[in-house]
Amino acid sequence: MLPIAVDAMGGDNAPDAIVEGAQRAAAELGVPVVLVGRPEVLEPLRGELDVVPASEVIGMSDDPGSGVRTKKDSSLVRAAEAVRDHKASAMVSAGNTGATMASALLRMGRIKGVSRPAIATPIPVPGTTPTVLLDAGANAECQPAWLVQFAQMGAVFARQRYGIAEPRVGLLSIGEEKSKGNTLVKEAHALLAGEGALAASGARFVGNVEGRDVMTDEVDVVVTDGFTGNVTLKTLEGSMRALVKAILGALGESPVADEAIGALMPLYATLDPDSTGGAMLLGVDGVCIISHGSSSPTAIVNAARVAAEMVEGEVVERLREAIAAG
Amino acid sequence: MLPIAVDAMGGDNAPDAIVEGAQRAAAELGVPVVLVGRPEVLEPLRGELDVVPASEVIGMSDDPGSGVRTKKDSSLVRAAEAVRDHKASAMVSAGNTGATMASALLRMGRIKGVSRPAIATPIPVPGTTPTVLLDAGANAECQPAWLVQFAQMGAVFARQRYGIAEPRVGLLSIGEEKSKGNTLVKEAHALLAGEGALAASGARFVGNVEGRDVMTDEVDVVVTDGFTGNVTLKTLEGSMRALVKAILGALGESPVADEAIGALMPLYATLDPDSTGGAMLLGVDGVCIISHGSSSPTAIVNAARVAAEMVEGEVVERLREAIAAG
Repeated sequence: MLPIAVDAMGGDNAPDAIVEGAQRAAAELGVPVVLVGRPEVLEPLRGELDVVPASEVIGMSDDPGSGVRTKKDSSLVRAAEAVRDHKASAMVSAGNTGATMASALLRMGRIKGVSRPAIATPIPVPGTTPTVLLDAGANAECQPAWLVQFAQMGAVFARQRYGIAEPRVGLLSIGEEKSKGNTLVKEAHALLAGEGALAASGARFVGNVEGRDVMTDEVDVVVTDGFTGNVTLKTLEGSMRALVKAILGALGESPVADEAIGALMPLYATLDPDSTGGAMLLGVDGVCIISHGSSSPTAIVNAARVAAEMVEGEVVERLREAIAAG
Repeated sequence: MLPIAVDAMGGDNAPDAIVEGAQRAAAELGVPVVLVGRPEVLEPLRGELDVVPASEVIGMSDDPGSGVRTKKDSSLVRAAEAVRDHKASAMVSAGNTGATMASALLRMGRIKGVSRPAIATPIPVPGTTPTVLLDAGANAECQPAWLVQFAQMGAVFARQRYGIAEPRVGLLSIGEEKSKGNTLVKEAHALLAGEGALAASGARFVGNVEGRDVMTDEVDVVVTDGFTGNVTLKTLEGSMRALVKAILGALGESPVADEAIGALMPLYATLDPDSTGGAMLLGVDGVCIISHGSSSPTAIVNAARVAAEMVEGEVVERLREAIAAG
C-alpha cells in the first residue's frame, strides 16, 4: 500500500499530537505513513517517518478558498497532491475542515458524475454500529438530486466501513410522512422513493427519519443538507458534552463516585469522538479523512486505521460504480 | 383570572392523564381550570372542574389544516375559541401540534404586525436557566425578516419566563463568522446585526451560535427556521434518551447501581421534558401552551403553571409592544 499522507500541521494540537499519532499508527497498525509539513518543524519530531515538505500552513481560521488558492505549498494542498500523484494512498487532516475539502476537491477532483462531495460523519450509537450522517457540513445549500447521491455514497460507505450488507437510508425531516419537511426534503423524498434510486448501491430507503432517530438502531445512513447536518452533528456533540459534565458533577459528590464513573468508562469511550476515526469526504477521487480539530494522538491512529481500511476496501472504486449506476 | 382551557382529549395519554393533571393544577396552583372535550367522556372524570363541551377530537395523526377546517366542534378549536371569546385566559394542549397551531392561529388570530407565529421551546441546561429555541417547528420554511421577529418574541418570552433582563440572542448557524451558513442565515444575520433590530425587545444579539452552544450558558435565545429548529429539538431528545438508556444499562450492572442512579435523579428531573412546562406558540393573540404528546399529569400541571404565569405577566401585551416597536 502507498503511504497515508498525514497533515502534520493541521489541528489544535499540531504538530506534536499529530506526529505522535502518525508514529503510533505506523507502529501499531503496520501501515506506511508519511508526514506532510514544514521540514524544520518536523525534523526533530519525525522519528522514522518520511516527510513530504510543505512550507506553508493554512490556519484553522483562514478562509478555505483563498487559503488553498494562495498557499500552494501548504501541508493540506501538498497532502492532496500526494494522493493525486499516486505518491500516497490517502490523506488525513485534523486541520481547517473547509480547506481540507477545498484541497481535496481542487487537487484530486471529483469522481465522475458526482455533483457535490459530502462529509460522512459516523455518529456513535450505544450497543450497535454508528449511524452515518451526511452531509455533515460540506454544502450549506443543496439540491434534491444531490441528496440522492449522498444516499448512494453513504450506503457504500456504511457497507464498507461497518459491514452493513443492505444499509437502511433515512431522509432527515420533521415528521415521518412524506408530506412533512421543507421543499428540499419533499422533493428529495420523491426522488429517493423512486424505483432504482438506491438499487445500484444495495441500500433500502426507509423514508423520513427525525432527529430522535439518529442515535438509534432504526437507520444506518441519515441523509440531509450540509447546514442541517452540521447543526445536528454539533447539537449531538454539545448535548453529550453538557450531559457528561453534569453526570460527572452529580456522581462526583456521591459516595460511590469512583465505582460509578468506572462503570461508565466503556460507554464514554464509545462516545468519545477520538474513537470514531473521523469523517470521510465522499465524492472526491481519493480517500480523504477529516479528523476533528482537537484530535489527540489516538484520534489520529484511528483516522489512519480508517484511511487504510478504505484504501484496502477500494471504497473510491465502489463509490465510482454506485454513482455510475445510479 | 379567567380559567385556563385544557384540551382534555389531546395527547397519547388523554383523557385520563390530562384530566388528572388539570385537577392537580387547580388544587396545587390555585388557578382556575376548565376541561374542553366530550362531555360524556369527561363527566365521570372531571371532579369539580367545569367542562366546555366539544363533540369532536382531532387525532394525533390527522392533517392539521383539514382537521381544524372540518372539525369545528373539536376540543382544540373550542379551546382556542374560549380564549378568543374571553371565556378562558389561555389554552393548553398535548394533542396534535400542527392542529394546535392552526386552531390558535385561525381562532385567536395573530398579534398585529407578526408575520408568522413560532414555537418557543425551552431546552434544559444543567446548572442554569433553559435556552429558548425558536422556531421549533411551526414554519418549515422561513424568510429572513421572520427570524428577526422570532428573536424579538423569543427575547420577550425569555425575560418573562426566566427573568433574564437582557437576553442574549444567537442565530443558529454552522460557524461563528457572519459569512457562515445558508442564504437565509446570512441575510437574517445582517438584519439582526442592524442597529435597532432588537433594541425594543431589550435583547442583545450575540451573533451566530452553533448546535453545541444550545445546551450551554453562552446564549439565552436561539433563533432558527422551523425545520432546523425541529431537527435540533428532536436530536437533543434522541441523544438524551439514548444516553440515559445506555447509562442505566452500564450502571445497572455495577455493584453501586442504586446509589449511583439515586445520585443522578436530580439531574434526570432537570432534563425530563415533563418538568419544562411545555412550549409556547408566540405571535398569536392569546396564550397557547403546547405540551408534548406523551405528557404525564405532572407535565400538564407544569404547562398550566406556565400558562398562568404568562397570563399574569401579560406576555401577549409585551409581545405586542415589542413587535410594534421592532
